Amino acid sequence: MPPYSGRASTLRESPTRRIDALRERLEREGRDVILLSTGQPGVPPPEWLREEAARLAREGGMGVYGYTPSGGYWRLRELIALDVGELGGPELDPRQVVVTAGGQAAMYAALAAIVPEGGEVVLLDPTYFGYEPLVRHFGGRVRWVPVRAEEGYQPDPDRVLEAVERGRTSAIVLVTPDNPTGRLLSRSAARALAEIAEDYDLWLVADEAYKTLVYEGEHVWLYSLDPERVVSVNTFSKDPGMPGWRLGYVYGPRWIVGKIHLIHESLVYCPPSIAQRTIMAYLSRREERLRHVEWLRGHYRVRRDALLEEAARRLPRARLARPQGGMFAFLDLRRYLEPLGVDAERLAELLLEREGVAAVPGTYFGTSHPYALRLSFSTETPERIREGVARIARLLGDLEGEAKAPG
Amino acid sequence: MPPYSGRASTLRESPTRRIDALRERLEREGRDVILLSTGQPGVPPPEWLREEAARLAREGGMGVYGYTPSGGYWRLRELIALDVGELGGPELDPRQVVVTAGGQAAMYAALAAIVPEGGEVVLLDPTYFGYEPLVRHFGGRVRWVPVRAEEGYQPDPDRVLEAVERGRTSAIVLVTPDNPTGRLLSRSAARALAEIAEDYDLWLVADEAYKTLVYEGEHVWLYSLDPERVVSVNTFSKDPGMPGWRLGYVYGPRWIVGKIHLIHESLVYCPPSIAQRTIMAYLSRREERLRHVEWLRGHYRVRRDALLEEAARRLPRARLARPQGGMFAFLDLRRYLEPLGVDAERLAELLLEREGVAAVPGTYFGTSHPYALRLSFSTETPERIREGVARIARLLGDLEGEAKAPG
Repeated sequence: MPPYSGRASTLRESPTRRIDALRERLEREGRDVILLSTGQPGVPPPEWLREEAARLAREGGMGVYGYTPSGGYWRLRELIALDVGELGGPELDPRQVVVTAGGQAAMYAALAAIVPEGGEVVLLDPTYFGYEPLVRHFGGRVRWVPVRAEEGYQPDPDRVLEAVERGRTSAIVLVTPDNPTGRLLSRSAARALAEIAEDYDLWLVADEAYKTLVYEGEHVWLYSLDPERVVSVNTFSKDPGMPGWRLGYVYGPRWIVGKIHLIHESLVYCPPSIAQRTIMAYLSRREERLRHVEWLRGHYRVRRDALLEEAARRLPRARLARPQGGMFAFLDLRRYLEPLGVDAERLAELLLEREGVAAVPGTYFGTSHPYALRLSFSTETPERIREGVARIARLLGDLEGEAKAPG
Repeated sequence: MPPYSGRASTLRESPTRRIDALRERLEREGRDVILLSTGQPGVPPPEWLREEAARLAREGGMGVYGYTPSGGYWRLRELIALDVGELGGPELDPRQVVVTAGGQAAMYAALAAIVPEGGEVVLLDPTYFGYEPLVRHFGGRVRWVPVRAEEGYQPDPDRVLEAVERGRTSAIVLVTPDNPTGRLLSRSAARALAEIAEDYDLWLVADEAYKTLVYEGEHVWLYSLDPERVVSVNTFSKDPGMPGWRLGYVYGPRWIVGKIHLIHESLVYCPPSIAQRTIMAYLSRREERLRHVEWLRGHYRVRRDALLEEAARRLPRARLARPQGGMFAFLDLRRYLEPLGVDAERLAELLLEREGVAAVPGTYFGTSHPYALRLSFSTETPERIREGVARIARLLGDLEGEAKAPG
């Protein structure tokens, strides 16, 4: 057995994948599972876009099947720059955009370019579970900054300042709209973060995966607040709903985007051609695209509202900040679970085994939410979302009953 | 400008991309360019497979557009294991196979898992230009081992032994059929390498991108010679001709494949779903698949032969080992260029500017072939390949004339 590098040692299988494996076993056993665990959108691309993808696949020669420029087709980079502008974001030069093989590759390449060995990265707690393993993979150290439900999960600048050290901190990484809480970064919090970035000369890495899925309020474009220090990571997985096709992009200052481009080229050579061509059609047909996004927002809003209503009714002691965007709600069950001595990880297991409901425990999103569950409202119908919440309430009732029962 | 990591510093844009940029400029100027530079196959997938891809894109819901297991669909891993066996390779457990987003991601993840900071990697000289930057990216050092045209570009075990040091060398990386020379690794050289790997307990990383494109002789499956130390890197880019769709795989000892899987998941989360589904159709329709490969071999063999014949006729002082597989021939022009004081890099520039022929200079493939050109026979017609060789001969004649001319 020859020696090997330690690079895999900081990595672990995605926690949602582990839940998927358990869920698949239950489904093989014929159990119906309500899926509140996934980050997968419930809506595939609209029919006209699928037809366009089919036409490309059928007719295409090496223009569709061949390699593309490693940073993506130039026309796609132009279309993305236009799109960001039309969505209300900054005006970009296409050379500030590099197309990637999905949002994961975008984040991997961005952090590879930014985080030096030993550099510190500030993560909000809770935040998407994908960032910490990457930071550690690059030899960086994570500094967690808790955000609180009672503050709407907005980062408190004072707490961020406590975690930041000149010359040691290389970046603050955050996602807005948020995964797992659904909060939109407020304009004042965004301004405070941009000021810290400038004062301490560090990067703000903004994951904008859910930027078009906003139900109330307005998405804050961090890049506009500090065009020298913000790198934005994006995906076409959520809108228009083709996560498996692996297409995303990064935009930011041109010189660092150049480095991210080189690293991304070394990872996958070029982003998938068929996904690029399909997204070029999506972004070119501007009106249909915006209509689809509008429809999607309505689609997900109904599901979010079903979740919120049912939780308010069935789980009066839970804390649940109203998600303003994205696909998730973060349900804090401390007042149920702490007295029971049950943490979220155990609850998620019981929920799946006893009630056939898949959810992700809050422990996966940081260090300070041991009693929370992330509930996705992206895949199930409103009725099944309500049913899922009702089953959570039933399980909590059962656990309380069992705790009181003698013996 | 915040500080950043040095990880991009060892990387550079792919040399063929730089040639592509120059070529694109000439084409914009209306010049016809004969393309002998590319690694892109000239043949897209067969029509029945394109139809299948179109059907999937049109009809598919989230089963086609959604995330897949991060190591690839289980059924695809089974099909790949079967395919390798049926092609004459080793018998594999599907758990020894991880599907990747193309051959580049396969090599990236494999070397990330294998090469520790400061580890040494033996590369044959010449070899594919993609390996060295990756080794350096991972903090490894390259030890070049020259292989010689007069030895059919087979590695000499004694020279490999000189480069290997116990505890310091972590891998030997090679590609067979070869890029850029087209040689098949001989069985005796393969055995000698496997013995060295065992004696020194190091990895043999075999890039088998061109394993189905063999014109004479037999592909050697290195894994069969040392199942504990061989990691094989593969792609569906060349056969069936969909490089832009980004699908490849790694196979090897299960424990290291597990680490490669984790690293690959951190790069791109999962390989593209549409490419996986399309390749599942390709590998399932066994007879059509083998018939297509047979046809492809004939298609490329005719082009190779045109190149060989024309080179023998027009360039009597060149040295050119007959490519037994792959898509490339390596043309050593030392006896023309050395007296002229012109190296291959300069020649490739002149060739493109004056004669409209794109080729890759040998200097990109290592350190010891300053007078060679890599000529691809994968994209042009036999007639245009002949014309390309004739133009190389004409340019060399012109350069000799200019050197003799007074003043």
